[in-house]
Amino acid sequence: MKAAGVIVEYNPFHNGHLHHLTETRKMTNADLIIAVMSGNFLQRGEPAIVSKWSRTKMALNAGADIVVELPYAFATQHAEIFASGAVTLLDALKCSAFCFGSESGDIAAFEETVRYLHRHEEKYNAFVQEYIKLGMSYPSALSKAFQSLDDKQDLVNLSLPNNILGYHYIQARNSIASGMKAYTLGRKNANYHDEGFTDETIASATSIRKELGKKKGNIKSVRSFIPPSTFEELEAYQDTYGVFHDWEHYFPLLKYKILSSSPEQLSGIYEIEEGIENRFKSAAYSSSSFQEFMVTVKTKRYTWTRLQRMALHILTNTTKKEMNKHPSPQYIRLLGMTDTGRDYLNLHKKELSLPLISKLSSADPDDIYLDVKAVDIYALGSKNPDIQRKLIEQEFKQPPVYLKNE
Amino acid sequence: MKAAGVIVEYNPFHNGHLHHLTETRKMTNADLIIAVMSGNFLQRGEPAIVSKWSRTKMALNAGADIVVELPYAFATQHAEIFASGAVTLLDALKCSAFCFGSESGDIAAFEETVRYLHRHEEKYNAFVQEYIKLGMSYPSALSKAFQSLDDKQDLVNLSLPNNILGYHYIQARNSIASGMKAYTLGRKNANYHDEGFTDETIASATSIRKELGKKKGNIKSVRSFIPPSTFEELEAYQDTYGVFHDWEHYFPLLKYKILSSSPEQLSGIYEIEEGIENRFKSAAYSSSSFQEFMVTVKTKRYTWTRLQRMALHILTNTTKKEMNKHPSPQYIRLLGMTDTGRDYLNLHKKELSLPLISKLSSADPDDIYLDVKAVDIYALGSKNPDIQRKLIEQEFKQPPVYLKNE
Repeated sequence: MKAAGVIVEYNPFHNGHLHHLTETRKMTNADLIIAVMSGNFLQRGEPAIVSKWSRTKMALNAGADIVVELPYAFATQHAEIFASGAVTLLDALKCSAFCFGSESGDIAAFEETVRYLHRHEEKYNAFVQEYIKLGMSYPSALSKAFQSLDDKQDLVNLSLPNNILGYHYIQARNSIASGMKAYTLGRKNANYHDEGFTDETIASATSIRKELGKKKGNIKSVRSFIPPSTFEELEAYQDTYGVFHDWEHYFPLLKYKILSSSPEQLSGIYEIEEGIENRFKSAAYSSSSFQEFMVTVKTKRYTWTRLQRMALHILTNTTKKEMNKHPSPQYIRLLGMTDTGRDYLNLHKKELSLPLISKLSSADPDDIYLDVKAVDIYALGSKNPDIQRKLIEQEFKQPPVYLKNE
Repeated sequence: MKAAGVIVEYNPFHNGHLHHLTETRKMTNADLIIAVMSGNFLQRGEPAIVSKWSRTKMALNAGADIVVELPYAFATQHAEIFASGAVTLLDALKCSAFCFGSESGDIAAFEETVRYLHRHEEKYNAFVQEYIKLGMSYPSALSKAFQSLDDKQDLVNLSLPNNILGYHYIQARNSIASGMKAYTLGRKNANYHDEGFTDETIASATSIRKELGKKKGNIKSVRSFIPPSTFEELEAYQDTYGVFHDWEHYFPLLKYKILSSSPEQLSGIYEIEEGIENRFKSAAYSSSSFQEFMVTVKTKRYTWTRLQRMALHILTNTTKKEMNKHPSPQYIRLLGMTDTGRDYLNLHKKELSLPLISKLSSADPDDIYLDVKAVDIYALGSKNPDIQRKLIEQEFKQPPVYLKNE
């Protein structure tokens, strides 16, 4: 059986993601699709609107066959570590290919860009250091350094977010010497209309979340942009848990955490450096909302996303020591599968290069410590102690989601 | 000018406290009364119902002339450290006497008890260790050890809470070789009727808080138990801050703190020992309220008060290292004064044995660190960010409360 991998967040799943799954299956000619999905907290340093279990159901219903979790230690990181964790998991799961969305859409250009930057590594790094010293944010420095290099032909534009991720996926694959073939689906060039999509049926996850966040019970307003199964799952989540998780729900806890911590304690948190803890402290005192807090701490030196990840690590009390413990994933956490997915795992379970965890209770508590803590904190997005308990207990009691193929 | 000291919490001030102030003035024949008062968190490990500023106004309006703060590092401690901090401050303020309420009411018996236990110290301590090994709580072991000693005549019953405090006041005075004369006012023998009090006008602070905690706006139901000035102050506090502080308001923060901390991190918190952090962790998961949490962690080994103090130190993130930094107060924090009080301070300011802090901004941030943090956390008892900011800013902007004598 031939498996193709995708690296996703599904926050929430929408018609664009459906298109990506359908095209991946076609382009790679795979028998099944394996999705590596971020858990409850995401790469931009924010809570997922609904839990990993709910998003796993969305994925399986829309065409994924296996969903595994990208652990907190990789999911909430900048592109390089995020990509390295995700690609390592797809390789460990014996995928023969993977497919990512990009602004470029040209896989040959990605391969060439990785080779090109490998050849010019020293020069490139020197430029990056130079621009950082001038006060640029890290992504701006990367982009500017890239522009400063000569002899660039047929390369990918590395100032666009999905191109950057794609670049790191291929670089990660090369660095672990994986044989997986890479594919990319152009976001702009996608022939959505062939798939029955129109402009009226495609919206970004961001705009969908914005709509859902406005007030309770307006899931109907995003109905045309999501598959019917996602719609049902969003309704079920709201009925069961009464909440779509949002940073604002966690702001009182973040504020308390910052006010009750000394600057020294804050500087032990992952990514906190260069005295930014003092900016966080004074912003926590003066701010009434997470939005206000972020606007107050924002400087040219750091991107919004990076600051938001710092805030997340403060919220989850994730220290440098904890985060740097393992440079690569130690296990594969199975969140869900179809029966095709189950057949595949039965067939390959002895070849998997990392242990497969189906039940949390059978895992080494040390290994899963950060992920369990993330679930505990995520649960506090509800004010209701019964709902909190339900969300926490689910993590230990819920077996992988199982979906029978039709 | 002759000053007499009292050691108080005023949570809130009531007619029993008024009686204590009036009697202290009479018994000691003092020109003024100096109150050492706990700040926003109290000896039983709980938040004061209203802030230290509000309680300072109550005290000045009812007859105290100077109110100074017993710092967090002493106010939230067991009787011995609490007493030692408070007595040190009264002595530093040049009081010639102090007066405490007790079940006994017999000051000679207190003095004799302190001498007696000093003589039998070794035997007493050996008994205490023995009873603790048998699984008794510390106060029970103290009480039982005391009972086990021979030749006790005319001694105070040290199983009663106010007698225990009184014992430690006198012991503390002796250990710093202070010349202050001790007085005690019997709680049971107090001739309330002489003062115009009847059974209908005296209620404990506990029962008053219970009544105030029931629902908002029922200050009127406790009106007969408190002086009119306290009544007005409670009304003003509710109007301005919209809250009477209660442990339940802080429970979501405590729960978050426990869930986001490793057992190792919790065991670094002051008073946390012998694996109690694991009980706290599992109780935090299962509890929906502070009351439920406390009932769940309660064991025979620890008193409710001691466990509540542990919970408070977790909430305020107060480590062993922070708490053990200074064995005695480093400063006198002035909260309020009448003009008699001001005259006294002007007269004696050069003789005070500790620096007097009137403005927080002029204090060494290291010295006041725990007290400032306590104010920050106390402010989170309100859910309203504007109120939180008001309570926090007050601490730095509010000059000592000043009341002109009539």
